[in-house]
This record gives sequence, C-alpha cells and structure tokens, in this order.
Amino acid sequence: MRYAARIRYMGQAFSGFQVQPGKRTVQGVLQAALEALFGVPCTVTGCSRTDSGVHARSFCVLLAPSAPCPSIPPAVLPRALAPHLPPDLSLYAAIEAPAGFHPRYDVQEKEYVYTILTAPVRDPFYAGRAFHYPRPIGQEAFAAMCTAAAAFVGTHDFSSLMAQGSSVSDTVRTVYACTCQREGDLLRITVRGNGFLYHMVRILAGTLLEVAEGKMSPSAMAAVLAGRDRRLAGRTAPAEGLCLSHVRYPDGLLPGLEE
Amino acid sequence: MRYAARIRYMGQAFSGFQVQPGKRTVQGVLQAALEALFGVPCTVTGCSRTDSGVHARSFCVLLAPSAPCPSIPPAVLPRALAPHLPPDLSLYAAIEAPAGFHPRYDVQEKEYVYTILTAPVRDPFYAGRAFHYPRPIGQEAFAAMCTAAAAFVGTHDFSSLMAQGSSVSDTVRTVYACTCQREGDLLRITVRGNGFLYHMVRILAGTLLEVAEGKMSPSAMAAVLAGRDRRLAGRTAPAEGLCLSHVRYPDGLLPGLEE
Repeated sequence: MRYAARIRYMGQAFSGFQVQPGKRTVQGVLQAALEALFGVPCTVTGCSRTDSGVHARSFCVLLAPSAPCPSIPPAVLPRALAPHLPPDLSLYAAIEAPAGFHPRYDVQEKEYVYTILTAPVRDPFYAGRAFHYPRPIGQEAFAAMCTAAAAFVGTHDFSSLMAQGSSVSDTVRTVYACTCQREGDLLRITVRGNGFLYHMVRILAGTLLEVAEGKMSPSAMAAVLAGRDRRLAGRTAPAEGLCLSHVRYPDGLLPGLEE
Repeated sequence: MRYAARIRYMGQAFSGFQVQPGKRTVQGVLQAALEALFGVPCTVTGCSRTDSGVHARSFCVLLAPSAPCPSIPPAVLPRALAPHLPPDLSLYAAIEAPAGFHPRYDVQEKEYVYTILTAPVRDPFYAGRAFHYPRPIGQEAFAAMCTAAAAFVGTHDFSSLMAQGSSVSDTVRTVYACTCQREGDLLRITVRGNGFLYHMVRILAGTLLEVAEGKMSPSAMAAVLAGRDRRLAGRTAPAEGLCLSHVRYPDGLLPGLEE
C-alpha cells in the first residue's frame, strides 16, 4: 500500500527536506524510520523542498514501500511510526494514497508564514523559530509593509523574487493573499499562492523589511516585479523565520487528510 | 548599582534555576554572563527555584555586583548582556533595585501554566514544551477537571500537594485562581496564588489528569486537601509541561518592571 500522509517538523536540526549524502534531512530520517517499521526500503516524495532551518507545520508526503511488505492500516501508521521518529519530526495523519497521487504536482495552494521578532533582545521561546530583527517597526513603517505586501497579490512573473541559480523556466505564479499581522513584538507575514519559486518567501520578507526601513517604497513593488531582476528586490531573510504552514489539495482528492 | 530584572528561559537544557556544582543552571549561566560583562563576580537572587526542565516566561531576579565596578544604565543592561547569554536564556528588562528589595520575599502573586498535549502522536512544535499525554479527554472528563480545579481556589493547607522531603514548615497557601482551558489538542491548567509548595503545580496537574481518567472524583478534592497527606493526591506530572508565566509584586514597588 502507498500512503499519503501529513508530517510536521522543526527545521533547526535538519539540512532541509531533501536527502543529501552525509546530512541529516527530513526525507532521510523519514525513510530510515519507515524502513525500520516496514522492514523494506520506502521512497518518500514530498510536496516541497524546504531549505535548511525552515519549519513545516503541515507538509504532505507520499510513502511507497519498494517491495511487498505486511500492510499497516493507515489509521494506525502515525502511532506505529512514532517510536522510530525523533522529537523534531512527526507523522500525524495518513490515508491510502489515491491512484496517481503526486504530492508536488497535485498541490492547489500553499501557505507560508514568516515570523519576525522585533524585541530588542532575543526571546528564548522563539529561538530558531523567528528571525530576530531587534529594531522597533513604527506604525507608519508597518502600514507601508502592509501596502507593499498587497502589491504581490495576483498572477505575476516573480523572477525578481527568485534566488539566482534556480533552473525553473516558468516563473509565473499566482499569489492569493499576502498580509502582515502584529501581536506585541511578533510580526507575521502570511502568504498563500499556487506555488513559490526558490527563496521567494524569504526574499519577499526581506523586501518588506527594506520597505519598513524606508529603503524601498510600497509603490516601487510593481516595478520590482516588472523588472524581472533579482537585484531589484530586497535581501533574503534568514531561514529560521520561515514555516510552511499549510498545503492544500483539490477538494475530495485526499478524503480524511484535509485540514 | 543593584538591578531588579526580568529574565526568560526554556528549561530543557538547564538543571533548574539554582546553582549546583557541575550542572548547567540558570543562576550559574546568568552569574557567568554578568561577571563577563561587569568584570567582577555578581550574585543573582531569584524569585523562585524552578526544577530541571521547567520553563519561565517571566522570572524576577536581583543582580548585585560583589565589588565596585563601572555602572551600566539599567535601560542598557538587556542589550549589553545579550551577547554573553545563550539562546535559551534572555534578560529583557531591568531597573535599579529599590532599597531592601528581595525577589522572593516581596512576591505578591505567581502564575504557572501547565501545558498538556493530548494528540495521539508527539508534536515537534511542542517538544520539551508540553507534557505529551496521548489520550483524548472527552467533554465530560474535561468538565470534571474544571470542577476539580476550582476546589483548590482559596486559602488551604496544601501539604497533600507537596513533594515529600520538603522542609517547609508553613504549608498554607492562597490560590486565587485555578482554571483549565482547551484549544484543539492543547489543554492548559493556569494557577495563580501567593506562593506554591515544592512540586505543588505538577502534583495538581497530575491530580487533575487522574480526575480526567475517572480515578478520582472532583468532589474528593476537599478531602484530598483536608487529609494533609501526599498519598491522597494524584501523581506528579512531568517538568516539561510547566512554565512560570508571571511573578507580580506590589504596585509601585518596581516601577518600569511591571507587566
């Protein structure tokens, strides 16, 4: 049986999702746990390739044992696998995968949250979980960030927000929502879209911080996009602030695995 | 100058607050950081002695350099000390201590939060930050916990909720509030009082879980207290679920350090 499952991880101690020789990765740790449980190697296909240090609250995977093995009911899989997983990774829901399901190609919408801590000193409760940016962001600067964020909503060529060196050819994506919220010293940028380019959310967060700093104007965002040039956007914000918070599939595709 | 300050820490990697030879403690790490900054040894007096693994969101300390040294303005102390502190400990506010101030004797009220995760599998986002109790707590069981919690409000002899071996002679404390809240898979027990005995909140949490399990009745709580016998209460819940969330002092005693 092949499974579709939801996993969650804290990214600090992982070198990203994808297997790399000699590195501790989410895919590698998950494949080892599955092999320990099923007794045969299993392939794990992810919905995304998160970078080193990036977290995922809800990440979708396809699990496929590579040889016949005793079948474990999907409802039991989370508990059965738990003893084989480390504290920073959990698999919390599973179903039998529908025929032809692919966790990356079938994605309808992804949501990322970028968290910024603006307190003057670090907060131990957010160590590795937020980008510590120890400067106050005034009400006017925050309003400018909100205005700038809204400029990214829509279908655009996002080349300017893509890290150089990426080999993707189609750089058009649709962003459904891009908003900023504040609660005390925490500032959160939430962005939902049909897909994201390499480092796109981190460059977006870095660009919004440059807007807060007055280095860029909210009205310049349209030109940043139109120029299709990475140098027009702001810096890349650090990985630890980023969390893949949700991945949505078409209604009815994954019954029992919706959230 | 002597300082009154607020600190925050994640307890996982500390052997509690109080200095112990050969152990990494909050007091020890803080004293070393202060000595690095001031160039002379400093004594740190805390408002409480949290156990190994227990967290503190807001913990009050008195900092006293043991010899004359260059004075650092209190408003600057958090930023000046930050480079000397590890990621799991921060000092985020400081004032000049009023004459005669003692962070333990002057406490008016403490608030603890005990966090329980009832999801079937562990959650990486709460690893070391909540007690994983992988059993669903039904609506009726939760209502029983709430009723039982209310029975601890008031001035009582709390001997039954004190770990054996404690040498405290006065075991009477006043609990101002004791409530349970739920949000999804998280259950939080919040308790406020004028003081707490050794392990009191952890035994209270363990007792409420036995109420949820039907092993104890909410109506038995009065007898648990009246019996003044540790064996009448429930088990001691693990340290990782516990957080000292607030410590309050009389109005006007610590101007600029209230929260």
